[in-house]
Amino acid sequence: MNPSMQTVSVALGDRSYPIHIGENLLTDTDGLRQLLAPHLRSSQVAVVSNATVAALYAAQVEAALPAQRMDLFTMQDGEQYKNLQTYGALLDFLMAHRHNRTTCLIALGGGVVGDLCGFAAATFQRGVDFIQIPTTLLAQVDSSVGGKTAVNHPSGKNMIGAFYQPRAVLIDTTVLRTLPLREYAAGLAEVVKYGVIADAEFFDWLEAHVDALNAREENALNHVIRRSCEIKAAVVAQDERESGMRAILNFGHTFGHAIENLSGYGAWLHGEAVALGMVMAARFSEQLGCLQPGHALRLRQLLSALQLPVKLRGAVESEALVEAMGMDKKAADGRLRFIITKSFGSAELTDLEDEGVLRAVLEEFCAASETNLM
Amino acid sequence: MNPSMQTVSVALGDRSYPIHIGENLLTDTDGLRQLLAPHLRSSQVAVVSNATVAALYAAQVEAALPAQRMDLFTMQDGEQYKNLQTYGALLDFLMAHRHNRTTCLIALGGGVVGDLCGFAAATFQRGVDFIQIPTTLLAQVDSSVGGKTAVNHPSGKNMIGAFYQPRAVLIDTTVLRTLPLREYAAGLAEVVKYGVIADAEFFDWLEAHVDALNAREENALNHVIRRSCEIKAAVVAQDERESGMRAILNFGHTFGHAIENLSGYGAWLHGEAVALGMVMAARFSEQLGCLQPGHALRLRQLLSALQLPVKLRGAVESEALVEAMGMDKKAADGRLRFIITKSFGSAELTDLEDEGVLRAVLEEFCAASETNLM
Repeated sequence: MNPSMQTVSVALGDRSYPIHIGENLLTDTDGLRQLLAPHLRSSQVAVVSNATVAALYAAQVEAALPAQRMDLFTMQDGEQYKNLQTYGALLDFLMAHRHNRTTCLIALGGGVVGDLCGFAAATFQRGVDFIQIPTTLLAQVDSSVGGKTAVNHPSGKNMIGAFYQPRAVLIDTTVLRTLPLREYAAGLAEVVKYGVIADAEFFDWLEAHVDALNAREENALNHVIRRSCEIKAAVVAQDERESGMRAILNFGHTFGHAIENLSGYGAWLHGEAVALGMVMAARFSEQLGCLQPGHALRLRQLLSALQLPVKLRGAVESEALVEAMGMDKKAADGRLRFIITKSFGSAELTDLEDEGVLRAVLEEFCAASETNLM
Repeated sequence: MNPSMQTVSVALGDRSYPIHIGENLLTDTDGLRQLLAPHLRSSQVAVVSNATVAALYAAQVEAALPAQRMDLFTMQDGEQYKNLQTYGALLDFLMAHRHNRTTCLIALGGGVVGDLCGFAAATFQRGVDFIQIPTTLLAQVDSSVGGKTAVNHPSGKNMIGAFYQPRAVLIDTTVLRTLPLREYAAGLAEVVKYGVIADAEFFDWLEAHVDALNAREENALNHVIRRSCEIKAAVVAQDERESGMRAILNFGHTFGHAIENLSGYGAWLHGEAVALGMVMAARFSEQLGCLQPGHALRLRQLLSALQLPVKLRGAVESEALVEAMGMDKKAADGRLRFIITKSFGSAELTDLEDEGVLRAVLEEFCAASETNLM
């Protein structure tokens, strides 16, 4: 087995699974075969990917299959294709290739591929085996861990989905070398989030290692991916279906989703919107009197150093942001709820009591918008 | 609370739920309100039904809501509408009416409504509350209990779905008085199945009460519905996700699905196809030397007395039946598996070892087909 490999466990009773993290997991054919083999119950495997990722890695997965026939489904890349149409096309593909309930779906790609493939795995014949091989940093530290699967509805992101755990997650850190800068930075936004909500020391560590992270140094990558997966696994183990504390993983996301909704999917990467959303959430926490002033600035500086956007773009009306938040699925029974932080390393869910503070924060960010559209 | 009401519990840990069975549950507004109230967490409720059933009972549900706004989604009746298109239309409806994750979906209708509504409840915002109010005998004794939800794919029935348990099942036996004869008889097929697979005494009781059942006597109905729900609940409690013994609930269904597939959805009611499928499965058990000869005939006579079809219709090729079974989702990794009975009151899953016996049984039934198309 690959000597660099580390394993984080997600403890969910009979739905527990390992996250294997290491260098060159995909190019080490024998090692990959050993990782895949325990999860393959039938003679068929379907790999879901996009053209770019499939060209790079699909042959490596196929080479490592012990004896299975691999059918490759490639979808268009981009959040706008994570919808019921693509989902239906994938189901048609599985039926046409006569996959049955002992098949295994392997998501090979970023969050879009993983979310859609996972939802298909959750629902094809009422659930089949599922393995995640995330190839973006965002998917490695966030979407591939924890069992959230979904597609988008025209009226809202991730409105259709299921909680469905994979059998295993395989994270090859080497694939990040070729990841476009924007996508890489977008992943770092979620990494920073784990520091804010759960581990102040980790936040300090990130501040101290900005250069290593921007240079994608292997040791730094392995550390942040492992620590991020550990934090997410611990939260998910306590609250698989987001009835309570799992909501803290959405720190910055209520603001972030509103930004994404207003701009149309694709203008902002999810991680980019979350970066700005976290700065807004931190500022909101300050203005509520919960968080010591200066923390929002500190967060903004770290994210900015990691080449993430920390300002709105173009002319944005605060009213439009308020409205975009109204339909957010984290709204419980009409009330708006927010994740705030009272000190870095912790986060909690709070009901919005004073809409005035929220509006003031939104107006502050609208006023400070970059004038140029991206 | 309604004095006639009995409650069967489905024991599934934190997903346990009650099945309330009684006369006039829907017309007893106060009683219905007490049954619904514990499961309503938000100000919104969506009732999914079809035009016929909605006209009869939707107002009764609405009258019993403690304080909720009820949005009514009516779908076309029939298995051919239990598909991804109707599912998508229901999701659009929920989004347009701004339902959020604390909403409750209520399935008011037969199996088609329940399966589709359940799948929407399982996947809308990754799962919302769900109550079943089945209005056909088949749905009351089978599809509303156990958490199987699904829609059909053009290539196969129930190919897309989820295991998702309701919060409660409310069974008003009075609604059966107006149920069309064919639908009523189709429900009795599943009742007979419970006798065959799990309770020989219950089978004897059914044979002794054919007249009472055909007359839809209230006491007989209450007994068969309660006993059927008890048996199904016990099986589901042992094997929620059909990894093993739950498969015995599919006795007769591999044959039945093949009959349905060959005829196109709608020509046979599901319960009708299962009735004939059970006779075939019993005959198959006999021919394998597992079941004492004479039982298939006894089963055929009971089903026939309950006004169910026990013969194929028109010219059917046995080869076409074999082929229609090939894609059945109960085929594990290419092998065909069947539920057989070695004596009434028990059933088990077996791999098909000798295809010759199967073909001989199919040919026997093809040769004995009714010559007239229905």
